[in-house]
Amino acid sequence: MNQQIKFLLQESEIPHTWYNIVADLPHPPAPVLHPATLQPVTPADLAPIFPDAVIAQEVATEREIPIPEPVREIYKQWRPSPLFRARRLEAALDTPAHIYYKYEGVSPAGSHKPNSAIAQAYYNKVAGVKLLVTETGAGQWGSSLAMACNFFGLACQVYMVRVSYNQKPYRRALMETFGAKVTASPSCETEVGRALLAKNPESAGSLGMAISEAVEVAAQNPDAKYALGSVLNHVLLHQTVIGQEAALQMRLAGEEPDVVIACTGGGSNFAGIAFPFVGQMLRGERKKLRVLAVEPEACPSLTRGHYAYDYGDTAHLTPITKMHTLGSTFVPPGFHAGGLRYHGMAPLVSQVVEEGLAEATTVPQLESFAAGIQFARAEGIVPAPESNHAVAALLREAKRCKEEGVGRTLLVNISGHGHFDMQAYLDYMAGKLTNYAYPEEEIAMALAGLPNV
Amino acid sequence: MNQQIKFLLQESEIPHTWYNIVADLPHPPAPVLHPATLQPVTPADLAPIFPDAVIAQEVATEREIPIPEPVREIYKQWRPSPLFRARRLEAALDTPAHIYYKYEGVSPAGSHKPNSAIAQAYYNKVAGVKLLVTETGAGQWGSSLAMACNFFGLACQVYMVRVSYNQKPYRRALMETFGAKVTASPSCETEVGRALLAKNPESAGSLGMAISEAVEVAAQNPDAKYALGSVLNHVLLHQTVIGQEAALQMRLAGEEPDVVIACTGGGSNFAGIAFPFVGQMLRGERKKLRVLAVEPEACPSLTRGHYAYDYGDTAHLTPITKMHTLGSTFVPPGFHAGGLRYHGMAPLVSQVVEEGLAEATTVPQLESFAAGIQFARAEGIVPAPESNHAVAALLREAKRCKEEGVGRTLLVNISGHGHFDMQAYLDYMAGKLTNYAYPEEEIAMALAGLPNV
Repeated sequence: MNQQIKFLLQESEIPHTWYNIVADLPHPPAPVLHPATLQPVTPADLAPIFPDAVIAQEVATEREIPIPEPVREIYKQWRPSPLFRARRLEAALDTPAHIYYKYEGVSPAGSHKPNSAIAQAYYNKVAGVKLLVTETGAGQWGSSLAMACNFFGLACQVYMVRVSYNQKPYRRALMETFGAKVTASPSCETEVGRALLAKNPESAGSLGMAISEAVEVAAQNPDAKYALGSVLNHVLLHQTVIGQEAALQMRLAGEEPDVVIACTGGGSNFAGIAFPFVGQMLRGERKKLRVLAVEPEACPSLTRGHYAYDYGDTAHLTPITKMHTLGSTFVPPGFHAGGLRYHGMAPLVSQVVEEGLAEATTVPQLESFAAGIQFARAEGIVPAPESNHAVAALLREAKRCKEEGVGRTLLVNISGHGHFDMQAYLDYMAGKLTNYAYPEEEIAMALAGLPNV
Repeated sequence: MNQQIKFLLQESEIPHTWYNIVADLPHPPAPVLHPATLQPVTPADLAPIFPDAVIAQEVATEREIPIPEPVREIYKQWRPSPLFRARRLEAALDTPAHIYYKYEGVSPAGSHKPNSAIAQAYYNKVAGVKLLVTETGAGQWGSSLAMACNFFGLACQVYMVRVSYNQKPYRRALMETFGAKVTASPSCETEVGRALLAKNPESAGSLGMAISEAVEVAAQNPDAKYALGSVLNHVLLHQTVIGQEAALQMRLAGEEPDVVIACTGGGSNFAGIAFPFVGQMLRGERKKLRVLAVEPEACPSLTRGHYAYDYGDTAHLTPITKMHTLGSTFVPPGFHAGGLRYHGMAPLVSQVVEEGLAEATTVPQLESFAAGIQFARAEGIVPAPESNHAVAALLREAKRCKEEGVGRTLLVNISGHGHFDMQAYLDYMAGKLTNYAYPEEEIAMALAGLPNV
């Protein structure tokens, strides 16, 4: 019996193009609207915050978009990332399922985020930008952009959601080691931040607030641009290297996935692994498979949000997009998966779910950590709290295979490692964590404030 | 111009044997003595704490020792580890040097330590052992053994040097996530620990003390054995996969190293990268190269210790070996590189330095962190504080190349990442760290207590 556990590709097999699912979707994406006029945005509307090349990718309809050679050169530092067969986990679960995981924690910043950070830093460098301003939740995006800015000689300023800033001082330390300036959000540095603090000086912050602060700073400085780590089409596009590689690696393994699983906050690691498979399915190149988006129970935009036009940020500086949303003023509770604490969902991920090409499910916090620990003991890799949500859903599927006596092939994306999240693991093991109930009232209030489009 | 930055091997190129430098050294190693009788130890003396297969490796004289297939299978999870050309660091330093680094931080536990932990857990499993007891300084060895024990279904108990236990709660969290029991050393759990605490209730601990506690526990439990993470011949042996791979990778890069650099605490990562190159040099298969062992200024066994017979631990439970030592009762100050806080040095590393095959140098704490940050900004990888010592020596060599206008090829081992050491980086950036002077008096006192052999 072949006991192979790792499926590696050659550097030459790193994709040469990013995959744009827009080319294959049954319907075109809903137009993006200007937050003031409610008319479709034009490239000129976006020019103050993004370089032209990024704007072009945001509205692109070609199936394949070339990866610039300098970006692909840097990808080679950690790509192709490994695909593993989780044989020890299968044995521990005594499941007939074949479990594969794509591991994005091998990047220097420890997650999938550099796949887009390197690309965005490159396009901004080429456009003559001097400073990139961004937000970060758990800090995975912020540290990735800080690293990428170094590689291209750009300055980097990060607004970090306050609850994560406090929970994860070592993610901040990583960004500062890379030379970035890091500010807890909401802050006194911006108009938006000062207004939020005036309303609630104890605000835990949210990705929506931090985005508002970063956009404000970038829009006011002619040498600066803004960079977003998820949600937008171009970010999802950059992440498709994950799924393209995984598809080749599954072929090396001689198997086809029956289920593809990833966690969803803004949607970028999910889209990264899932979209290339969905595209092959849409083009009739692959059998039908289940695609599973896994959300935290306390912030379930796909499963319990409205599919409606909403703002991407709290201060309503960003364009309005059609997506699954819990309302832009909703502040998720401070659970330990900062990367999943976002009120909305990537419009393309929302559309894929609406069109029945993927399904969504939720996992409570305690189950996510129990799953992460079981995974770590079997495989040696400690997943990030965000990834633990995907692992929990994976374990459910593996157990279902056992119950049904069916040996399905499961593919999960481990979007990053948990090395900077050990306080959360300590708290879990000490019995200090709880589940968060679905914030019924807060979300109803936030949804009542959806824009009238 | 070839801009390649990563040099990967195939899984089939993971070494099939470990390299035993004893076969090539000009002189046989000095005999190891029993701590009570001062006579050469016999395998029977070691049987209470090590399984037979490990004892056989400790005294082996064959050049090549086969790696068991189950060990090599697990190595495949992260091996062959990558070799990188540090082109961005070269550019930042504006040096004509060609800088290569072997990166062992890709292992699931984040350092080179699993290379031996997997092997030791395997041999103990085969021997029917149920519990492995060990010590750890920075926690890299302890977390590696905790992981390895999981893979083979063994229990794991770790005595962690108290200063590291306090400085690095997240390394402890990692061990606990892997299911190990972790105790701060000196502890009340052992006779040795109680005696040490009676003398000094505030003891910061040391590797020498933690070794004594672990050996005591293992020797008293018939189902338990002891595992050591460095110093001994069999541990160094297991680490030679690093240098064997690096030699193949340098050939892929089309270059031969002029200088090989690694940090030295107990000596295992140094031996791992250096011994295969030294062996090739001794056998006339390679031109002469410089081999550089880098120590912390506050614990410089190779550069300022005596080359003499000494105990490996504080309580004098372990055999007496001939090595560079600062005295077994010396307690190094609490600088942030716990893996380098050991009074002695691997006997084989000591012998290699004594025979003029390698040279040693020291680096102060502040220079080590400055070097680590410069490396991180250029390469995206944050080295462990231990590895920062090697990086500091690398930067000195690269600067010398620039001054002399000579483009030497430098190869450094980055033994692990610093993800669990971000507090040290934060403290450094906040100006809270200092250099430690050479502890002249303490070391003189400890050296006065060398055994009379």
